[in-house]
Amino acid sequence: MNLESLITPAAVIDVARMHRNIERMQQRMNALGVRFRPHVKTTKCERIVQAQLDAGARGITVSTLKEAEQFFASGIRDIVYAVGIAPAKLARALALRRQGCDLKIVADNVACAEAIAAFGRAHEEAFEVWIEIDVDGHRSGIAPDDDALLAVAAILSNGGMHLGGVLAHAGSSYDYDTHDELVRIAEQERSRCVRAAERIRAAGLRCDVVSIGSTPTALAAEHLEGVTEVRAGVYVTFDLVMHNVGVNDTSEIALSVLTTVIGHQSEKGWAIVDAGWMAMSRDRGTQRQKRDFGYGLVCREDGEVLGEYVMSGANQEHGIVSRAGTPDHEIEKRFPIGTRLRILPNHACATGAQHPAYQAVSPDGNVETWPRFYGW
Amino acid sequence: MNLESLITPAAVIDVARMHRNIERMQQRMNALGVRFRPHVKTTKCERIVQAQLDAGARGITVSTLKEAEQFFASGIRDIVYAVGIAPAKLARALALRRQGCDLKIVADNVACAEAIAAFGRAHEEAFEVWIEIDVDGHRSGIAPDDDALLAVAAILSNGGMHLGGVLAHAGSSYDYDTHDELVRIAEQERSRCVRAAERIRAAGLRCDVVSIGSTPTALAAEHLEGVTEVRAGVYVTFDLVMHNVGVNDTSEIALSVLTTVIGHQSEKGWAIVDAGWMAMSRDRGTQRQKRDFGYGLVCREDGEVLGEYVMSGANQEHGIVSRAGTPDHEIEKRFPIGTRLRILPNHACATGAQHPAYQAVSPDGNVETWPRFYGW
Repeated sequence: MNLESLITPAAVIDVARMHRNIERMQQRMNALGVRFRPHVKTTKCERIVQAQLDAGARGITVSTLKEAEQFFASGIRDIVYAVGIAPAKLARALALRRQGCDLKIVADNVACAEAIAAFGRAHEEAFEVWIEIDVDGHRSGIAPDDDALLAVAAILSNGGMHLGGVLAHAGSSYDYDTHDELVRIAEQERSRCVRAAERIRAAGLRCDVVSIGSTPTALAAEHLEGVTEVRAGVYVTFDLVMHNVGVNDTSEIALSVLTTVIGHQSEKGWAIVDAGWMAMSRDRGTQRQKRDFGYGLVCREDGEVLGEYVMSGANQEHGIVSRAGTPDHEIEKRFPIGTRLRILPNHACATGAQHPAYQAVSPDGNVETWPRFYGW
Repeated sequence: MNLESLITPAAVIDVARMHRNIERMQQRMNALGVRFRPHVKTTKCERIVQAQLDAGARGITVSTLKEAEQFFASGIRDIVYAVGIAPAKLARALALRRQGCDLKIVADNVACAEAIAAFGRAHEEAFEVWIEIDVDGHRSGIAPDDDALLAVAAILSNGGMHLGGVLAHAGSSYDYDTHDELVRIAEQERSRCVRAAERIRAAGLRCDVVSIGSTPTALAAEHLEGVTEVRAGVYVTFDLVMHNVGVNDTSEIALSVLTTVIGHQSEKGWAIVDAGWMAMSRDRGTQRQKRDFGYGLVCREDGEVLGEYVMSGANQEHGIVSRAGTPDHEIEKRFPIGTRLRILPNHACATGAQHPAYQAVSPDGNVETWPRFYGW
């Protein structure tokens, strides 16, 4: 199978770029002296995750219990479920641990910690729990100096659970676009998560793991003193949001959507393609960044960026390709019916999720289908 | 199985509401004297499409050849693939027709019509082709008075294809929010599509089918003289975008996402839930409408709208629920850890697509799992 034989739309992985991205992150983590635990929510694809492990990653991070179940079934034991667990999901977490999965779960509040301890005791299971730390006000977690931190730690520890460590994610790093700002937020993520671990230890409790990470902070951090591991996901393919943040060039983006021109509205300068938001996702993550790429940046079928052309609009199975700035009234000649283009996505996690499989293109032009899964 | 036993997040269909929505549209179409051909891209779910057919729909509309293949496999023969066909997909369309599927395909340009005629002749297949008409400048299609209309009709007809009719979709109807505007755009959709059919007939060619439709125009049209069939999709569940357009009350929305509270940031007035954009989709279709619902409107587990609470932010597997206007600093007491909520979506087509199945709740509380599919 080769690129020309694929039906459109299709989610294409440039295998060489993907391996370079994996190497870049792993070498950086090795240099910083920390373990690397990729977040597999980006691809949910066994072949890609295996490549991350082969390059040196140790364990994985998941965003759903289904990811934990699927990757455990494919032979991975060391898994962190990095979303605060709903008490009703404890039975499912228990089932995984009873099958031999070294599943770590996360809590960031007293009620959840009490539910874990009660359920664990009732089932004679010492769950390993990591406490989520809020390092930037982005979303979840306990602030490092909040009283709740020690309360949660004590409930878990006194309740017979295994307090494994602390975990943070500087999601606000996506809001910046200069190296200096990324260095600053990376240091904030590190120092605040380390501070939380130190408070737990000062209270006489163990806190072995200090886990942080986001793609921008992982690539910007100047040192990671006190950190034991880093998590990151989207680096494996990168995307246009990350390009705007400043951590990758468009030539490093390993995911694109292959599409075919099916119509034109020449007076408007539009080419209509058979990839709409169902293939690209509705993610408009570049909308408020320094360059708005619409639904994606247009490349030739061979992957070369065309620069001025973006997917400026999208319906479910129709995309509108147009030139940024002045309309291209010659677009019908430039991209005749049947022309195949590749669209770089705003957000690789969202775009990948729309597809049952990736089409992985190797440097020799060979294409393999790499399934991915979805659901909970 | 009942609502309480579902794992979260889950896409819940209120079966009673769904049947009322189906009845409402079918009765309207019957009163207007046209055939009704639902667009199944909204749900891609055999059980739901069967309910639409049982209520009187005749044939279906699809947005992908995979939908055509799947629904043909489940016994439906009369199918319109309502996206302009890429020439490379003709072999797949041919395979469906050779198996007995009465598949109609769509073209809106000379190059596509020529490709269909050439492929059809080469394979001795008289494809039935409908010409797409642009009635509002929204996306694809040929303007009714454009010379290209008769050129395409002649190429198909002279090329031995079966010119079946014309098809239009007033996608711009989503941009309005008063009844008068909807009546006007519905009449524009009708009159322009009929005009195109009349021009084809005046040129001495047959044009039996005049197919129009969108949910807002279908519900607003005062008469459909000259129209033979109507297509609509999202009416089957409705959603918040349609609510803002003015065609349904929130109490008629038959799709919601069931979710569980997993955390709080009380000083911000946030409850964190386990449905993020992966469960809701990234669709922000209400962003520029008269009321912006964020990622969705919050209901109690039993479906009662809570009014002031919306999902104001979303990451992949985290949603932020907050009160519109002033923050609710009591939100931790209002929605304790483990509280289950239902979120009405902006856009039912996009939200449904994120889920491998619907959980269909009957009035007696019984829940059945109705699979849906994705991909191309």
